[in-house]
Amino acid sequence: MIDFPYIDDICRRTGSKIIMLVVDGLGGAPHPETGLSELETASLPNLDRLARDSDAGLTTPVAPGITPGSGPGHMALFGYDPVKYLMGRGVLEALGIGVELRDGDVAARGNLCTVDNGGLLVDRRAGRIPTQEGAPVVERLAQIEVPGVDTSVHVVKDHRFVLVLRGEGLGEALTGTDPQAEGAAPMRAAALAPDSAKTAAAANCFVDGAKLALRDRETANMVLLRGFSRLPHVPDMGETYKLSPAAIAAYPMYRGLARIIGMKVLATGPTFDDEIDTLHKKIREHDFFFLHYKPADAAGEDGDFSAKVRALEELDARIPQLLDAAPDVLVVAGDHSTPATAAGHSWHPVPLLVRSRLTKGGGVAGFSERSCGQGSLGRLPAANVMLIALAHAGKLHKFGP
Amino acid sequence: MIDFPYIDDICRRTGSKIIMLVVDGLGGAPHPETGLSELETASLPNLDRLARDSDAGLTTPVAPGITPGSGPGHMALFGYDPVKYLMGRGVLEALGIGVELRDGDVAARGNLCTVDNGGLLVDRRAGRIPTQEGAPVVERLAQIEVPGVDTSVHVVKDHRFVLVLRGEGLGEALTGTDPQAEGAAPMRAAALAPDSAKTAAAANCFVDGAKLALRDRETANMVLLRGFSRLPHVPDMGETYKLSPAAIAAYPMYRGLARIIGMKVLATGPTFDDEIDTLHKKIREHDFFFLHYKPADAAGEDGDFSAKVRALEELDARIPQLLDAAPDVLVVAGDHSTPATAAGHSWHPVPLLVRSRLTKGGGVAGFSERSCGQGSLGRLPAANVMLIALAHAGKLHKFGP
Repeated sequence: MIDFPYIDDICRRTGSKIIMLVVDGLGGAPHPETGLSELETASLPNLDRLARDSDAGLTTPVAPGITPGSGPGHMALFGYDPVKYLMGRGVLEALGIGVELRDGDVAARGNLCTVDNGGLLVDRRAGRIPTQEGAPVVERLAQIEVPGVDTSVHVVKDHRFVLVLRGEGLGEALTGTDPQAEGAAPMRAAALAPDSAKTAAAANCFVDGAKLALRDRETANMVLLRGFSRLPHVPDMGETYKLSPAAIAAYPMYRGLARIIGMKVLATGPTFDDEIDTLHKKIREHDFFFLHYKPADAAGEDGDFSAKVRALEELDARIPQLLDAAPDVLVVAGDHSTPATAAGHSWHPVPLLVRSRLTKGGGVAGFSERSCGQGSLGRLPAANVMLIALAHAGKLHKFGP
Repeated sequence: MIDFPYIDDICRRTGSKIIMLVVDGLGGAPHPETGLSELETASLPNLDRLARDSDAGLTTPVAPGITPGSGPGHMALFGYDPVKYLMGRGVLEALGIGVELRDGDVAARGNLCTVDNGGLLVDRRAGRIPTQEGAPVVERLAQIEVPGVDTSVHVVKDHRFVLVLRGEGLGEALTGTDPQAEGAAPMRAAALAPDSAKTAAAANCFVDGAKLALRDRETANMVLLRGFSRLPHVPDMGETYKLSPAAIAAYPMYRGLARIIGMKVLATGPTFDDEIDTLHKKIREHDFFFLHYKPADAAGEDGDFSAKVRALEELDARIPQLLDAAPDVLVVAGDHSTPATAAGHSWHPVPLLVRSRLTKGGGVAGFSERSCGQGSLGRLPAANVMLIALAHAGKLHKFGP
């Protein structure tokens, strides 16, 4: 809804404060034996109490049936159309390991792979070699020279790395080199628009250099590149909403995404307790806080139902400390669902709570997918959540006379 | 949904009749002590009975989180995209006092204000002087001559007036003269497009004349103008839907808005009983009636919870008389919510009932935000209500073969 054409007319600065807690992978699905979801199984006295004093609903991150990555899931919650402002895979991979991209840089996701003597792919992921084996191989790629372009390579994990191309006139419209099938040869990168010819040439030059650099190896002796992308040009969140927004997130990807959209990224420690500590220290300095909670998603991705239940209970225990920061509006949202039964992200709608002085008495029985589905906010696109938060904070003028 | 591209193909004239009762500011919010909204607190035996025989839902006037003015709120209910067909502040202010605007006229909202000897603003609203003091001052502005443009000034209330500019070639793309801050000088109107240069010159000439005309006064000695706007070009509602629509509304603004979109505005008295009386007298002459009920909004704006409850109960008592008019479709809708807890318009979704011969047995338990949220119509944009009403009236052909 950042594209609402009169957004600049209706937003106004006020002293009120919004905290948006994003519980990564918040939504779940019923356990086949009990019929209860992770939220329904967990003991969540604080979140249940909060739900009774909140407007509740279910958000659709992108569209019904669409399973979002973390990028679109978060972009939507900050009010950005997640389709229009899609971040490329290379960029998101770079952000995820804390690589600071500059405007105009092109980032690509890289795989070490194994080719045979004829140059045909034997294994697109080089046996998913562990990081301690993959990292030294990736580091050998740092020596590759590409004329007119600065390259840097960054270890991600296992066989994965990020390639960053830096230089003048690098477009992002080009094909990757992964043929998506073993037995085929890696493809040549090809420009899809004239502005990306230099990028394609640089990518191919890098691949040739990699082949040469790794020719003495039996496995992990070649690379595949895909997801070429630049930092997107997105509206500045603070300017758009007339806010001074801050991000408190331990994981690099969320910090990087927040920086891209114009949030001040606050220094914080690795745990959620560290994040809460940072919140309390900085509460006077900003009027919007994005607070990220990761463990629910991680447990869901692992397909570990009870670990996800525990992660939610550990979050619940910290809700009073969040409330101690006395926000005028507290939003509890998720970027997407990660049901343990799916062992991954899913398309399921995501519970949402919005608590302000206006919501007392209007809440639902507890905090779960089912009860939020009965809430006064109904089903709504995640990209509408920011406007609702701003409305509750008194930060929106009336639209139209 | 007047923008549905096949609207002309699917609409058909029939003898069936639709009454759309618009309860201004219908939606509310829970009282913090009881947890019950105005609708839930009021005793509404007739509306509750109607709800049990109606399809029910909740409308979103503009977008989640967006608080609409009365203009967008009504435009949406008549099927007009409220963002695309936004009416200017000057136009709506003129309509609100019954000024008949012609195509091409430019209306602006005016304030009497107070400036010091140096011409700097001391009070942008001239102490909100009461109408009996402000009106004679505004009337002195009638003598101002602007070459090539006919001007007229119209008292609104207190320090407020409407300026209408009439002449050839008057655009509406210009800035207002209100600097929005005391201590600053009034600004000059400036054209934002070449077609509005003449309007800006005329506005500045009028302001100079006002300064001269009021120079003997200590206070209310200057004017500020803003919201320059012309009648919008909107599709004719009757032509679009193949209806003969009539408006029964006591308040000038709603009458003016109805006239702009092509409704026949029926003469009526100042009370809702007068409106019902008019409905019964004219029921044979039209096939669509917009009936406006104001008191719920007025009480909500005052922040008076029990007055809003009473206003709803008074409406409820008159529902049987509405049903006596035997409409084929009765719609009970609101242009926006006005919770007493917010003491103003709000973004909350608005209860909706649609009763026809097809809805008997399909209803909800009663007429409230919560129960309508459980209704068969779900959440829907207010701009969809007209199509649903037409469908229930048998006025829409099948779309597509």
